[in-house]
Amino acid sequence: MKYYAIVLALLSCGSLCVAQPSQQISEDFKPSTLNQPGQEYPQVNSQGYARFKILAPQADSVRVSLGLRGRGGTKLSKGEDGSWMGTTAGPLDEGFHYYHIIVDGGKFNDPGALNFYGSVRWESGIEVPAHDQDFYALKDVPHGNVQQILFPSKSTHTSRRAFVYTPPGYDKNQSTRYPVLYLQHGWGEDETAWTNQGRANLIMDNMIAEGKIKPFIIVMTYGMTNEIKFGGLRNFDITPFQTVLVDELIPYVDANFRTIADQSHRAMAGLSMGGMETRTITINKPEFFSHYALMSGGVYKPEDIKDKSKVKLIFLSCGSKERPDGVKSATATLKEAGFNAVSYISEGTAHEFQTWRRSLYELAPLLFKN
Amino acid sequence: MKYYAIVLALLSCGSLCVAQPSQQISEDFKPSTLNQPGQEYPQVNSQGYARFKILAPQADSVRVSLGLRGRGGTKLSKGEDGSWMGTTAGPLDEGFHYYHIIVDGGKFNDPGALNFYGSVRWESGIEVPAHDQDFYALKDVPHGNVQQILFPSKSTHTSRRAFVYTPPGYDKNQSTRYPVLYLQHGWGEDETAWTNQGRANLIMDNMIAEGKIKPFIIVMTYGMTNEIKFGGLRNFDITPFQTVLVDELIPYVDANFRTIADQSHRAMAGLSMGGMETRTITINKPEFFSHYALMSGGVYKPEDIKDKSKVKLIFLSCGSKERPDGVKSATATLKEAGFNAVSYISEGTAHEFQTWRRSLYELAPLLFKN
Repeated sequence: MKYYAIVLALLSCGSLCVAQPSQQISEDFKPSTLNQPGQEYPQVNSQGYARFKILAPQADSVRVSLGLRGRGGTKLSKGEDGSWMGTTAGPLDEGFHYYHIIVDGGKFNDPGALNFYGSVRWESGIEVPAHDQDFYALKDVPHGNVQQILFPSKSTHTSRRAFVYTPPGYDKNQSTRYPVLYLQHGWGEDETAWTNQGRANLIMDNMIAEGKIKPFIIVMTYGMTNEIKFGGLRNFDITPFQTVLVDELIPYVDANFRTIADQSHRAMAGLSMGGMETRTITINKPEFFSHYALMSGGVYKPEDIKDKSKVKLIFLSCGSKERPDGVKSATATLKEAGFNAVSYISEGTAHEFQTWRRSLYELAPLLFKN
Repeated sequence: MKYYAIVLALLSCGSLCVAQPSQQISEDFKPSTLNQPGQEYPQVNSQGYARFKILAPQADSVRVSLGLRGRGGTKLSKGEDGSWMGTTAGPLDEGFHYYHIIVDGGKFNDPGALNFYGSVRWESGIEVPAHDQDFYALKDVPHGNVQQILFPSKSTHTSRRAFVYTPPGYDKNQSTRYPVLYLQHGWGEDETAWTNQGRANLIMDNMIAEGKIKPFIIVMTYGMTNEIKFGGLRNFDITPFQTVLVDELIPYVDANFRTIADQSHRAMAGLSMGGMETRTITINKPEFFSHYALMSGGVYKPEDIKDKSKVKLIFLSCGSKERPDGVKSATATLKEAGFNAVSYISEGTAHEFQTWRRSLYELAPLLFKN
């Protein structure tokens, strides 16, 4: 046990770690809520262990990428019926995890699971029930819509896709206008991530139903205009995406939706790479946004911001398994410099979507208050 | 060659057939337009041959389900770099095809291709360029939106999902109200099929831009409330879905969108199983729909319809590789009986989405004329 503990401390592995490898496994496995219709596997138990079953009768080796990092994920064993089964060596963190399977050296998705765009590919996804899953559950409350729009982009010579969340009642309250949050995904993801993995629409529906927030619109578009391969981030140039967002998407949204089309009613937030984009664009274009949020996506320093009076909120967050000290100290520094800065640390989660679901839940009530 | 011809005539295999197995293959292969971002394979050439490449270094056998039916699809051969490659034995039909790969006896998706929901699973998809692909191309024209709605369904104790296409200008023309087409997918598909595979929104955008049709709304929801497994269709009971559609979805759409909420401005259409559903529901509930369309999904007989005066249009279609004679003779019989019946046969296509894309293109100008 001691050896394990040291190894684990050295790895910044988040959900891929095994917390208590020797604990008794409860045999109360149920199909993951993100399985394809009618599929029994993958399964998750009440402790957060995941169990996989893959049919590949003539394969020599089947592994799952989830599990203990550095040990090749979870190796499955072949059963007499030609299917391969295995259970993670320990519980996974609460929330959503990407994964894939490796069959005889080839990378494939689990035929039992739904797919989610991450790592520049559609990956399998699995959901570990969380103690706080109620805030992103599908409930019997009025639901907003998620609209796919195709907006003209001269700078990239195409029609680009965005998803627009309009709150419940948007179509009925024809005289109401709404603030807008521009919300960006992370590296390797796309404009589907915040609703599919993040459940942003359900988080909003539930908070609006409970009267916790005033309704606003969320716009999600693809934040990678140039490089989609590994390594592209090293030489990342924000200009093409900034042009799409500020010169093309925002005017389109303001012309086609009932927005309050001014700086004080426009926010930008992003996770991971989307945080990096948010930071750069809000610094470059302070006349467009008043509320900024970086989720596991870096920090602001007071000197980054030229005109403090234009910034209504800076929200910084990450998981407790990331670098919470950096987020906390940056927030303290911003507060000392007179900014309305708020930090949030998601307990027990890493650089994954549970951190960002919770971050949106914490951020939303703070937006457009003033 | 003669032996092939006989075998092919006996199989009702559509796109899975090989038209001219011995023709010279042009080496002008390009990535399929439905590949995942940055993926070079699968590829399609100008003749409609498809070429696949799958990395699985330690596998013993890799096959692709597309190819000559009854011969195990297309067998791939292992190259020195550990990847498996192969080309279909002949050209595929124009348009969209579902497929999967078989690796050492296990069924997986092609990591290079996007996934589409069909056969009660997310399958790989490949697009063979068609001579008439312009009508469903993404063009620089005003685009309508595709909205995901979650509507309350008491009968199934949940919020159910539908997609609603609203035409360009819907949000700007606040005084305009629109007719509605309820459009159903086929067996094993879901409410994503008509936009993802069918490109219904782009077909509409293009026709509206060219002035070929007057704008209308399209509503697409999941048509399988009970059985999702093979065999379920044998004992299919329309009642649960009819309740969802007529008692729950239609009132929700009429309350939340600017529809013309009467029988004469409401149409129902469906492909394959969705045609079967359309036929049954329009016969059961003639007070709701005035325009009926069955695409590769059966026919009406004059005696099916109690009150002829309520029916403004009956549209019947299928691919030339299905049973065009049945569609044509049923249409003739309906015409003789005094119905406004129209048939359409998609040349060179089978029970696949190219037939249904074209069917929608032919149907749309006929809707809501009177």
